Amino acid sequence: MKRNVLIIGAGGVAHVAAHKCAQNNILLGDIHIASRTLAKCEAIIASIKEKGSKHGPGRLQAHALDALDIEATKTLIRETGSQIIINVGSPFLNMSVMTACIETGAAYLDTAIHEDPDKVCEPPPWYGNHEWKRRDDCKKAGVTALLGVGFDPGVVNAYGRFAVDTYFDQVDAIDIIDINAGSHGRYFATNFDPEINFREFTSTVWSWENNRWKSSKMFEHRQQWDMPVVGNHTTYLTGHDELHSMSKNLGVPNIRFWMGFGDHYINVFNVLNSLGLLSEKPVRTAEGDEIVPLKVVKAVLPDPASLAKGYTGKTCIGDLVKGTKNGIAQEVLIYNICDHEESYEEVGSQAISYTAGVPVVAAAMLIADGIWDVGHMVNVEELDPAPFIEQMNKMGLVTRVRDAKGDRVLEPQRELLMNAPVEELEDTATYEYFAHDQALLTKGQPSRQHDMR
Amino acid sequence: MKRNVLIIGAGGVAHVAAHKCAQNNILLGDIHIASRTLAKCEAIIASIKEKGSKHGPGRLQAHALDALDIEATKTLIRETGSQIIINVGSPFLNMSVMTACIETGAAYLDTAIHEDPDKVCEPPPWYGNHEWKRRDDCKKAGVTALLGVGFDPGVVNAYGRFAVDTYFDQVDAIDIIDINAGSHGRYFATNFDPEINFREFTSTVWSWENNRWKSSKMFEHRQQWDMPVVGNHTTYLTGHDELHSMSKNLGVPNIRFWMGFGDHYINVFNVLNSLGLLSEKPVRTAEGDEIVPLKVVKAVLPDPASLAKGYTGKTCIGDLVKGTKNGIAQEVLIYNICDHEESYEEVGSQAISYTAGVPVVAAAMLIADGIWDVGHMVNVEELDPAPFIEQMNKMGLVTRVRDAKGDRVLEPQRELLMNAPVEELEDTATYEYFAHDQALLTKGQPSRQHDMR
Repeated sequence: MKRNVLIIGAGGVAHVAAHKCAQNNILLGDIHIASRTLAKCEAIIASIKEKGSKHGPGRLQAHALDALDIEATKTLIRETGSQIIINVGSPFLNMSVMTACIETGAAYLDTAIHEDPDKVCEPPPWYGNHEWKRRDDCKKAGVTALLGVGFDPGVVNAYGRFAVDTYFDQVDAIDIIDINAGSHGRYFATNFDPEINFREFTSTVWSWENNRWKSSKMFEHRQQWDMPVVGNHTTYLTGHDELHSMSKNLGVPNIRFWMGFGDHYINVFNVLNSLGLLSEKPVRTAEGDEIVPLKVVKAVLPDPASLAKGYTGKTCIGDLVKGTKNGIAQEVLIYNICDHEESYEEVGSQAISYTAGVPVVAAAMLIADGIWDVGHMVNVEELDPAPFIEQMNKMGLVTRVRDAKGDRVLEPQRELLMNAPVEELEDTATYEYFAHDQALLTKGQPSRQHDMR
Repeated sequence: MKRNVLIIGAGGVAHVAAHKCAQNNILLGDIHIASRTLAKCEAIIASIKEKGSKHGPGRLQAHALDALDIEATKTLIRETGSQIIINVGSPFLNMSVMTACIETGAAYLDTAIHEDPDKVCEPPPWYGNHEWKRRDDCKKAGVTALLGVGFDPGVVNAYGRFAVDTYFDQVDAIDIIDINAGSHGRYFATNFDPEINFREFTSTVWSWENNRWKSSKMFEHRQQWDMPVVGNHTTYLTGHDELHSMSKNLGVPNIRFWMGFGDHYINVFNVLNSLGLLSEKPVRTAEGDEIVPLKVVKAVLPDPASLAKGYTGKTCIGDLVKGTKNGIAQEVLIYNICDHEESYEEVGSQAISYTAGVPVVAAAMLIADGIWDVGHMVNVEELDPAPFIEQMNKMGLVTRVRDAKGDRVLEPQRELLMNAPVEELEDTATYEYFAHDQALLTKGQPSRQHDMR
């Protein structure tokens, strides 16, 4: 059992995580929010109070912290008695915050790989560059370090694990598909920090094909998908952290990540990129000033946080898994639909932040409960996905599954029973469970309210 | 008679002007080139020596000069004994250089209206904002100040004057059409300083319609034209300096300027403009620095001078004039075709600079000769266009005319005779002129070599 949470960062994901921690602070205890800019932490606390998110007693406090300063972070962890550290700050902070956790014994969670500010997007082997080098240190210290537990990476890793274990004897391919079918109504904007956002797309795209890494260029490979609720969308093969750990841990020969982009987004991106305006290397103006073009692009683009109000539509993110079961070809899509307006209504953020912020808190709750408090470093697909999916189902982030049997809420225990070997099914209790729950096997658009049981 | 030329500026147009002055220095005398950066002037002199452009004796010298400093400019004018000042520097310099001319008695020529660096593109009444306020001063000093004598403004003004006087009793409309059908082979570039180039397109577009100013937005009005040599091209209604003076001086109810843009140019322009990256107003970066986005865009774009080598294709600029003669509707296109590669071969510049730099030197030669040395301030359409067109025909910038009679080199004297009242034509000499020159009434693509008689 662990208690008291320190959230590091005060951006969109931190905002959602703080709300969700506050909603669950009977389990989680005190909630602390720390970032370089105290005012941003205080704004989150004001939002929590306004929405009435906090349900139990306990502290809710803002702190100014430069999380690159390991000693200052350790001091804050100790002073606040925090046993769970949710790092949702800049990806440049991961290794210093993790070190502070190892040296204080606190559990560590993040939602993206560590990045070196001098590199454009981390090259392979991603986790191998930084995080996994501390694996032995975590084990020695008995520290739980849970890497990449947002939606993607995070939930999609758990979906992959669940699919591999439940629906297949052999899996040939996992295609992770990330579609934002929402509209912010602005000419152009990125959904999170443009400096981080664009870095994802300006370097080599890596995918895992036939058990090998394959490189391609951004926007080189295009694929249409017919997705539930949001319908037909065009996606492009993109590199993403989770491919690395999933390729190591799932034994699946093909794992690809597909990001949905509209033609307008791609056009703007291509113009800026072709002109060199997305470069993080300084250029010299006619006046002799050294300026990083990407910082100017960031300055003219809307602040991602400003997009939440008025954002309409839905996101659809999931794993399309193909393989065989009992010699028969199977295709299973495990996915989530998240609504921008409902997210804003509940916590004051759009769905992009919501889908990343809820999972990390669900994971923190499983660590607090002891279920996922494994005492060493893990990626999400190394843990039992069932309690994680169950926990998110209760927190407003409902998982669904679409396969030959139809489209339904994914309730892990029921799916496990349904797909267990035949001898296990010849058990009266199982048949009763199905009879009672038949109504849940419904098709169509999920409703968050309906599913928040 | 005036002699010795001081060229102010060392950009693309200055480069061409210096070459052309050097080619004609038997008439023009000493050639001086002055700009803030001495090295740029020296590079032009090196290019003149490399191409062997200088034909006669006389000085060819580079000078460092801040032409906003009127006293320094006057000193340089006096020390060099320059009687003709060709101002092809930044458009921010016009009024200080003109003042230096008024105070020293030197003739003044430029190729674009004065601009205030704090304004995005001068609003109407353009020449009325600055230049024309010094009209009385020029007259009092007996100083020839010839405004806007590049191609457009400049040559197109002379074309308008020539058409109105020669081919029509009444003119309804002059459409000035500017098409660059060349290719620089780069992803995107502007043909002259991006800061000046984009300013033309980011504000209100003014056109002269039914004897009134009409405003519209950039890229609001689109028009296809079938032009000689370069073929079918799409253009957009654009504001341009010459509309102001031509509307005052020609008595034509409709005068419009159409600039050719490819879809790719417009797309890049629209993305940059919509994002706010063409703004001359500073934005604040996340790090707190104040940066003017347009200066960063300029820094990432290719230096226009670097485009000349390898630039292929042709420009086509002209006046399409519609009206009536003897009660019959007439349509006349007076135009020039300029080839990027031939321009580079001759003077080391592309055609955009060539078409602006040759006319100002042709005008300087007419001032040196006394023909255009009128001793007061004028716009080009206030002067006799015939000697100007003749002079340019000899200098590599050949004017052609396309009308019901065909497509031919425009030789002013012949056209005047051809279109003179019938009683004037009943003259043996005229008939002989036609018989001798019939071969010139050819259709098809002009050749600069052939036409350089």
